[in-house]
Amino acid sequence: MIVIMSRDSSEKEVNEILERLKGLGLSGHLSSGVERAVIGVVGKVYPELKDNLELMPGVEEVIPISRPYKLSSREFQPRDTIVKVGDVSIGGDELVVIAGPCAVETTEQVVSTAKAVKAAGATVFRGGAFKPSTSPYQFRGLGEDGLKMLSEARAETGLPLITEVLTPGDVDLIAKYADIIQVGARNMQNFILLDEVGRTRKPVMLKRGISATIQEWLLSAEYILAQGNRQVILCERGIRTFETYTRNTFDLSAIPIIEKLSHLPIIADPSHGTGKWYLVPPMALAAVAAGADGVMIEVHPNPDMALKDGAQSLTFENFQGLMSKIVLVAAAVGKKVRVPSKV
Amino acid sequence: MIVIMSRDSSEKEVNEILERLKGLGLSGHLSSGVERAVIGVVGKVYPELKDNLELMPGVEEVIPISRPYKLSSREFQPRDTIVKVGDVSIGGDELVVIAGPCAVETTEQVVSTAKAVKAAGATVFRGGAFKPSTSPYQFRGLGEDGLKMLSEARAETGLPLITEVLTPGDVDLIAKYADIIQVGARNMQNFILLDEVGRTRKPVMLKRGISATIQEWLLSAEYILAQGNRQVILCERGIRTFETYTRNTFDLSAIPIIEKLSHLPIIADPSHGTGKWYLVPPMALAAVAAGADGVMIEVHPNPDMALKDGAQSLTFENFQGLMSKIVLVAAAVGKKVRVPSKV
Amino acid sequence: MIVIMSRDSSEKEVNEILERLKGLGLSGHLSSGVERAVIGVVGKVYPELKDNLELMPGVEEVIPISRPYKLSSREFQPRDTIVKVGDVSIGGDELVVIAGPCAVETTEQVVSTAKAVKAAGATVFRGGAFKPSTSPYQFRGLGEDGLKMLSEARAETGLPLITEVLTPGDVDLIAKYADIIQVGARNMQNFILLDEVGRTRKPVMLKRGISATIQEWLLSAEYILAQGNRQVILCERGIRTFETYTRNTFDLSAIPIIEKLSHLPIIADPSHGTGKWYLVPPMALAAVAAGADGVMIEVHPNPDMALKDGAQSLTFENFQGLMSKIVLVAAAVGKKVRVPSKV
Amino acid sequence: MIVIMSRDSSEKEVNEILERLKGLGLSGHLSSGVERAVIGVVGKVYPELKDNLELMPGVEEVIPISRPYKLSSREFQPRDTIVKVGDVSIGGDELVVIAGPCAVETTEQVVSTAKAVKAAGATVFRGGAFKPSTSPYQFRGLGEDGLKMLSEARAETGLPLITEVLTPGDVDLIAKYADIIQVGARNMQNFILLDEVGRTRKPVMLKRGISATIQEWLLSAEYILAQGNRQVILCERGIRTFETYTRNTFDLSAIPIIEKLSHLPIIADPSHGTGKWYLVPPMALAAVAAGADGVMIEVHPNPDMALKDGAQSLTFENFQGLMSKIVLVAAAVGKKVRVPSKV
Repeated sequence: MIVIMSRDSSEKEVNEILERLKGLGLSGHLSSGVERAVIGVVGKVYPELKDNLELMPGVEEVIPISRPYKLSSREFQPRDTIVKVGDVSIGGDELVVIAGPCAVETTEQVVSTAKAVKAAGATVFRGGAFKPSTSPYQFRGLGEDGLKMLSEARAETGLPLITEVLTPGDVDLIAKYADIIQVGARNMQNFILLDEVGRTRKPVMLKRGISATIQEWLLSAEYILAQGNRQVILCERGIRTFETYTRNTFDLSAIPIIEKLSHLPIIADPSHGTGKWYLVPPMALAAVAAGADGVMIEVHPNPDMALKDGAQSLTFENFQGLMSKIVLVAAAVGKKVRVPSKV
Repeated sequence: MIVIMSRDSSEKEVNEILERLKGLGLSGHLSSGVERAVIGVVGKVYPELKDNLELMPGVEEVIPISRPYKLSSREFQPRDTIVKVGDVSIGGDELVVIAGPCAVETTEQVVSTAKAVKAAGATVFRGGAFKPSTSPYQFRGLGEDGLKMLSEARAETGLPLITEVLTPGDVDLIAKYADIIQVGARNMQNFILLDEVGRTRKPVMLKRGISATIQEWLLSAEYILAQGNRQVILCERGIRTFETYTRNTFDLSAIPIIEKLSHLPIIADPSHGTGKWYLVPPMALAAVAAGADGVMIEVHPNPDMALKDGAQSLTFENFQGLMSKIVLVAAAVGKKVRVPSKV
Repeated sequence: MIVIMSRDSSEKEVNEILERLKGLGLSGHLSSGVERAVIGVVGKVYPELKDNLELMPGVEEVIPISRPYKLSSREFQPRDTIVKVGDVSIGGDELVVIAGPCAVETTEQVVSTAKAVKAAGATVFRGGAFKPSTSPYQFRGLGEDGLKMLSEARAETGLPLITEVLTPGDVDLIAKYADIIQVGARNMQNFILLDEVGRTRKPVMLKRGISATIQEWLLSAEYILAQGNRQVILCERGIRTFETYTRNTFDLSAIPIIEKLSHLPIIADPSHGTGKWYLVPPMALAAVAAGADGVMIEVHPNPDMALKDGAQSLTFENFQGLMSKIVLVAAAVGKKVRVPSKV
Repeated sequence: MIVIMSRDSSEKEVNEILERLKGLGLSGHLSSGVERAVIGVVGKVYPELKDNLELMPGVEEVIPISRPYKLSSREFQPRDTIVKVGDVSIGGDELVVIAGPCAVETTEQVVSTAKAVKAAGATVFRGGAFKPSTSPYQFRGLGEDGLKMLSEARAETGLPLITEVLTPGDVDLIAKYADIIQVGARNMQNFILLDEVGRTRKPVMLKRGISATIQEWLLSAEYILAQGNRQVILCERGIRTFETYTRNTFDLSAIPIIEKLSHLPIIADPSHGTGKWYLVPPMALAAVAAGADGVMIEVHPNPDMALKDGAQSLTFENFQGLMSKIVLVAAAVGKKVRVPSKV
């Protein structure tokens, strides 16, 4: 932490800072040759110290020089985290394709979709039984019945299952059915929920909040890691900007940034990232080219009949078409895709 | 709902839309003289229909023409909602001033602050016992011990109490201590929590999410109202934009917009809205001039020792100075402020 | 400027930084007790040095500690700049009200509007003869004919005139007619235009760009000041955010921030700041309460017939109603308004 | 254009709208079965009509149903525009790579860079002689001397040249030296400049403004096209959002959106799009995978000595490494890259 004094600060004010630091068991190192007096804080600081020091007379600004996240940082763990789910590895040199409907509607819908996406090359199946909805009058999911339908789809195809948890009280229920627990964008800063999924020993996929900075996202991952659950997967799904043509602005630069700052795997979700089915294939390919560890794609047997997010869902045929291109782009950037024998 | 066909859509495509609507128990009214074919949908539509119809061939865009919120709208209830808490009325011609520390630290801190803000003219006391923190390594509040300290402050001063709930499992506990339950910005779309506070019969203050549109905010209020709790107060506290000088961009235009769209009272929180104590007084006055039903101000005996948000807290003296100006601006816009006898 | 080394930087890397600084005629002051090595740069740095040093091995981040604007800063000039236009002072204890139509349409329109706004208490008249339009198919203004009509309005009422310049080639023409030259939001970073208006000796009102930070805005003011024109007035008129209900998000916190950082006067434009006529009065009052040196309001005899921005224009009657409230709020915050004798 | 009446509008108010339309030579088609009265406007509307009608009593909202851009739309011209510059085609099945330094510094710098990027596979050379700078104290470019140096680079390598114009008065000068005229992000809504470059017969590359919607961008292209210059190339270079880790948020979804809405070629600039050199390669590959017609990359012999934007510039070696990957990804999505014989 560095304390920058204002240009007209007095020696007395500088001394008061040094005294305050001393009182906190820290010490200050004064550089006075620079444009203005600058105090380097030596010792272990706490986050709120910045606010407190900035209120002291003569202080212009306080700049933290350590990143506030630790367990999620590459400084802390240089080697990549690889999350294993059955025989699927997320975070290594294999590109993972997660696919399935936004919301579970019927057993037939999920089973047929699971079979279709498996045939096309997906290795994890997704589907929501508890759905966050902006309006109380929208479809909110089938609940545990939906989880049972998802289990049938897993039984039929062998694909591991990812599904979303909305609230701490449901974590045990979700953990009973899911192979990967998803924490959605709206819950990225639901800290009690993060604590709770951190206490399970299931892999957790943490989506980026629509207005979360990358640092805040890593701090939310830190909540899960701090509870002892090291199987965290990050998922970029678009941020909110002024542009209204797309539902969100899909921030693909988050992929190489996360790769630089953190050892955690990073998945891209172009379905939510764009909100329009015809933008999903180019943006899925872009995510692969940018180095994502995987993509998550919404697929529905009849998007124009879907109870949720039909506008961003691919048909079986479009998904198959996309997979054939993903294979080529993945190869171009040195990632392996598990190609199903019959495609 | 209006379906706008693309310029080159065929008669067959238009007929398919009309058939689809018929199958849903709706009907379509075709205007073909306009620049392109336009179908007005007659009957009660469901929100997902927009997505579904947009996927049909020949459709350019589907435009909803009803607002998705109902119970919170002024169309539904033209007269203002007035929330009563003890002898305080929120939403009428009295300007409510809510004040207190960000986080509860000690009994002495909350009691002395409650006395000071009451003496200066505040009519509701605020303080957080459960604190949302971006980092797991920051102070997260004193929990129920903090609630007990807040109760002492209420006992000493008679000021009703507002405090924040973070998770559905704590709603009963908070409701036991609080006169008004606060749902924070990060939880504005924690729908399970909204359901739960909607089931209590305590007034709820719902803060706007940092990336929430006004429509989404009203839809979140709708969750609470739909559970039968009609005592909802909205609170603007700043949105996230590109500007980094302030912690958030305090969107004061939300005040007259809410007044136009909804019957619910609207409070402004310049402390979170700006993040800097020296911006709080001018922005509090601005909120009053814009027509807010009240302001919520963070006050701390020693901001530079505060465990949370010291940078945005006023000292007792600064709060008193602000109150003397609030009285004048409130009078200028025709709002009453309860002036304590001894100031 | 402070150079923060990465945690694993070597002594050799630190020495290379020190050498590089020496080669530039600067020196470096090393603090090594802190969490990581930190080098304070002593001497006069150039802005691009930050980029250059950040590319050197072992460097984590380079943090500038001087603000990049000088002439516009309060550090440089502690006393307020007061811009005089005829007998109107902008930046002192008088609240200035600028009013008039968005675009000049006819002589009758501008003359009748000028008379009406003068009668209600406006002290500067506004009107656009050269209009920036998002689309080439929209109305782009009457050009010099419009300037002549504006001059007639001035002749009839004695109100000084503010009008917008769009391009360097028109600066002389505009300067011939205008008492204050307006540089619009879209041109805030049209640096050649800033140079050019900086070479005139007419007061310049510089609007904030819709995506400009406050620092960028002051740097644009710096362009004008650096040419020797010290009569610069800033104008907040809303920034672009995700919220779509308003045309822009009117950032009123800019008012006290500018007052803190700069000696230049600051005006607020709620007409562009909100884009809706019924939001203009509450936001104009809010701006006054926040400490603005003035407000600029669009007024039109028949807003629903206006060739431009009718949706945000007040009728004569609504403007008069607003003025009667502005007088009260201004008084509450200690600002004077020149009240016309006949109102 | 569709006029949506409010729920409680009267028959009289509907009739007044119909009369107003009639007076404008338009007609209205009333659908009254829908949730509320809706009037379809028949005939050729002007953009400002929306604002005007919205001010009439009983009107809730007016929705335009035609896109405001014409010449740039794919509806107007279904086949792709291919811009030819020497033997380079932009917009066809060839991927164009534009490379060079941000700013021209010396003849040696530009000539050596031009040779290096040509050797690696670039087909167009870039370099700035007139530079927009946020601060008046930053480097603003070498002016015409810089243009002469760029010409030498072209003479030595045969690469066509793209360089930026900042102001209408310089258009002729730039057109004399450049093969493609660049209009930068800050000038995207400098309408007088757009008119002026529209009057030349040189290809124009129009960068997206940092806060421009896609629709506004196409409307700016429309200015150039409307002057008769049909050789317009669009360039995505990042938009401003709340995320501060990157200089801008590189909006790659703009690539497939432009391809859908417009026939104009679209180039991606990951150097400005990210602002950090180590993010440039992954994002360049992502842009190619998303279907861009080309990429523009900043390359400098010594980025840590660059006078401008060194932080986002690649070294010769890094650029060569990137090119070898671009070739693979381009092939994967069916685009050709001209591979130099000696690489």
